[in-house]
Parts: sequence; C-alpha cells; structure tokens
Amino acid sequence: MQIERITSRKSPVVRDAASLLQKAEKRSEAGLFMAEGARLCADAAGSGTKIAACFFTENAQKKYGAYLNAVLKTAERTYCIEEHIAPLLSDTKNPQGIFCVCRMPARTADGLPVGAEPDNPGSRRMLVLENVQDPSNMGNVLRTAEALGVQHLALVGACCDLYAPKVLRGSMGAVFRLGVRQFSDATSCLSVLNGEKITSLAAVPDSAATPITAIPFETGSWAVWIGNEGNGLTAQAISGCHDRVTIPMRGRAESFNASTAAAIVLWEMMRGAGEGEKKHG
Amino acid sequence: MQIERITSRKSPVVRDAASLLQKAEKRSEAGLFMAEGARLCADAAGSGTKIAACFFTENAQKKYGAYLNAVLKTAERTYCIEEHIAPLLSDTKNPQGIFCVCRMPARTADGLPVGAEPDNPGSRRMLVLENVQDPSNMGNVLRTAEALGVQHLALVGACCDLYAPKVLRGSMGAVFRLGVRQFSDATSCLSVLNGEKITSLAAVPDSAATPITAIPFETGSWAVWIGNEGNGLTAQAISGCHDRVTIPMRGRAESFNASTAAAIVLWEMMRGAGEGEKKHG
Repeated sequence: MQIERITSRKSPVVRDAASLLQKAEKRSEAGLFMAEGARLCADAAGSGTKIAACFFTENAQKKYGAYLNAVLKTAERTYCIEEHIAPLLSDTKNPQGIFCVCRMPARTADGLPVGAEPDNPGSRRMLVLENVQDPSNMGNVLRTAEALGVQHLALVGACCDLYAPKVLRGSMGAVFRLGVRQFSDATSCLSVLNGEKITSLAAVPDSAATPITAIPFETGSWAVWIGNEGNGLTAQAISGCHDRVTIPMRGRAESFNASTAAAIVLWEMMRGAGEGEKKHG
Repeated sequence: MQIERITSRKSPVVRDAASLLQKAEKRSEAGLFMAEGARLCADAAGSGTKIAACFFTENAQKKYGAYLNAVLKTAERTYCIEEHIAPLLSDTKNPQGIFCVCRMPARTADGLPVGAEPDNPGSRRMLVLENVQDPSNMGNVLRTAEALGVQHLALVGACCDLYAPKVLRGSMGAVFRLGVRQFSDATSCLSVLNGEKITSLAAVPDSAATPITAIPFETGSWAVWIGNEGNGLTAQAISGCHDRVTIPMRGRAESFNASTAAAIVLWEMMRGAGEGEKKHG
C-alpha cells in the first residue's frame, strides 16, 4: 500500500477532511464523515464502514499499531501526517493522531447499514428521538441502545447530525451498526411506523400517562418517542402516538435528562421482552 | 432591603464571588459556592440553602422577577450589577444574569442537609460513586437519584467536586436536598456502610456477576457502587463489597456510560422496592 506523506498544514487533502468536522451540510453533500481515535477508526473498519482515507502520525503508528493496521487494510488512501497537522483534523483536546474519512453507509429501507443482520420485524422494539439536539445525549442514547440490543432508531425533525464528531464518539461506534432512519417531522414518521404495525408511545413527564412498566413489550412491535431536552415532544408527535407513557418519579425533580429517560425506556423494553435475566457476552 | 449597585468589573465583591467558580479548594476553604440562573437560585433559596449574596442585572430583574424575589427575600446581601459584569460571575455562554453565593449546608452524620426529612434507615437504598470525574455525569446522576427517590449517596476517592458549577446545574438543584457523604477511599466508606448494615454491591461489566435484576431490593438496605468512567471500580472497592452485580447487555457495546449505568441501577432499586408502579406527584 502506498502511503503519502503530508508535511504542510495547507494540504488540500487535509483541508477537505477538516471541513467534514464542522458542518452537517458538508458531510451530507459529500456522503462522508470523519472518525477520530484508534479504537473508533478500527471499529469503523471492523463494522464494514468504507474508509475513503486514513490519516495517522508516526507516534500514533507506534502507539496504536494493531488498531491502525486494521484500518490500513481497508483504507482507499493512506496519509502519514506530521504531528502539527493532527489538531486540524481533530475535534478533541488531545488527539491520538488517527483519523478516518468514512463513507456514509448505504442503508436498507429499515435504516440498517447494508449487510447488517436485521432483527425480527414481527416483534420490533425501537426508539424515536424528536428534536434531540445535544450530541452527547444522542451519542449516549445510541451507545445504550446497542448495549441493550435495541437495533432500530428513528430521528425526527431537527435532531443533531448523526455523523457529528461528538455523536460518533459518544456512541462508541454504534452509529456504524444500528439501523437509523430520518424523518422531517412526526407525521411522516408515524405514517411509516403505522404501516409497519408498530405501536408508538409518547414519553411524557405526566403522572396521568401509562407507567412504562405497564407496557407489554414482550409481544408485538413498539416504538417509544423521546422529545427535545427542554421542550419534550411536539404536540404533533403526542397526538399522533397511540398512547402516552411516563417513567414514574418519586422525588422533587420534574423530569429526567433526555438520555437518562431514553436509557430507562430502553432498559424496560429489554427487560419487558424477558431478556433482563440474560447476561451479555 | 438594601441593594448595592456594582458598576466596576474590579469590584472586590465580584472578584471574590468569581473565584468560587474555578477551584474546589477555594469553595471548600470558604464554605461557599456559586449557583447561577433564575431557577437554580430560586431552588437553592426554596430548599433552605443560605444565600450569602445575590447578584442580578436589571434585565434579569425584569425577565425573572418571580424567581428573583424568592431569592432576595432570604439573601444576606444583594447587588445589582451592570450587564458587562455578568460574564465574570458566569460559567455558561449566555448567562441569565442571576447569581448566588451560597453557604454549603450543614449536614447530619447521614450526609443529609440539616432539616431534610430522612428516609427509613431500616430499608435504605443508596448509590456510591467512586472516582467519577465528569461533572456532567455526576450532576445527571444526582438529578436521576432525586427523581427516583434515592436520597443517599456517597462520593469515594477522587470524585469531581459536588459544588462545581456544572454539577449543580446538571443536578437541577438536587445537590441542595440529597444526602451526600464523602470518603477518601473505598475502605473507609465500606467500614461506615457495613456499620450501618448496608449491603454493598460492586457494579461491574462482567457477565459472570449477579444480574442487577436478581437483587431483592424490596427488603434490607443496599448500596450499589459505580466506578470511574474509564477504569471502573478500584480493586479495593470490588473486593470489599459483598457481591458483584452487572447490568445484562445484549449488543456489541462493552459497557455503559457511568451516568447511564447509574440510572439503570437507580431505576432497578426503585422498581425492586415495588415503587415502579407508583406515579409521581
């Protein structure tokens, strides 16, 4: 494999890659996004994500050789960059010195990356995020969904970009593997989920709603909707869902953080499906 | 009430207050900390936290009059500051213009702020955080604990400061009300909890450990230990606890985010105590 050396901060290759860090539009136009860090880049390669280019420093090569080799095997282009160039490609304070320009995966109608094994469509559990804007929250929700075995998500409205650097890192690579579909608004998402015979539940901080513990997740297909950090779900989403559910609270707090609410919902979906007693591994 | 006007950024009163934002040592020496924002400040006053000083801008007074009045009633000193001074007292990008210097609450041997209603010591459920260093994680854990009715926490080792601005904000004021005890290491904490007949469980990402769903939280007193974001619990903590528990996983992810793990543990404690069906309010 040919490795090109880059010594100048003005390299157009570096500049193009760096532009993918900033704007969702840039990423979506190009169909490319940036992954950073030894582990995340190796995870991308191992999950079948196509690597258009890999950038690495000599120090990173020494320190993370095993991870880097996994990436270099599949990368279309490879660049050894000088240390002073790494910060240009980085979204973190202390870059490890390994960066990949990844191709957005082709997805099936289900939102799954092509090649991923689909779960049973007859008993599907999924999470819908509406207008969730904090990338740390979204990344964490994706990580938790994968850990608990919920394979399908939908992003509705003005959610933050799935391929934003913080979402990728927070997700611990789950973005590469989960099924994610995007919808411009609640109505269009509901119409698709209804067509798939998935029952939609709106999570609301309202003691009059059905407790999440009362939902028979064991049978049928379910989607629980989680809303924006400050404002919750839109009226459109709430009125379009089949029922409203709530996480029972006891204390003085008025609500949960969005990613905490999502975690408890995901856990209940998994617990309710009789899998709470199974161990991982 | 006398309201002093402050027009200079060099005001020593402002400088002293601002110094509380930066360092845990400053806060702990002075026994003071800073709360910021209309709601959080009103929450501090409403929770019985003593307000040594309140700073507000004229704009904030117009916009958040009701919140501010609740604070001004109990504040020992009050300062109307010019708009350009607000950023000095702020830890956020867009300060609302209301700030309080609060006195750290006196706490009982239980860690509860003096005056708070203690729960039943015969069936106590508590969370222990060891070396949890991210203030957003810690703030979120405290918020979730309060929402689920877990009143007691312990901080062990090198946790981030309970009174750091991000912890306060993330906790949505739970810091003002929860019982929090601090220990220099796992052994000293275990010795106190053992003395109180509390069974300690170490949360580990290990499929060989007891699933959290198998713990009979309904009876007896329990403490679940959650470790550092990257390294988990120390060997000292794990070997000192009575048992190891795990959150069963299904997917490829190797672990949960610390605050997600804490949320699921807190939820199971509450669910296990037969309170999952209760609604809030």
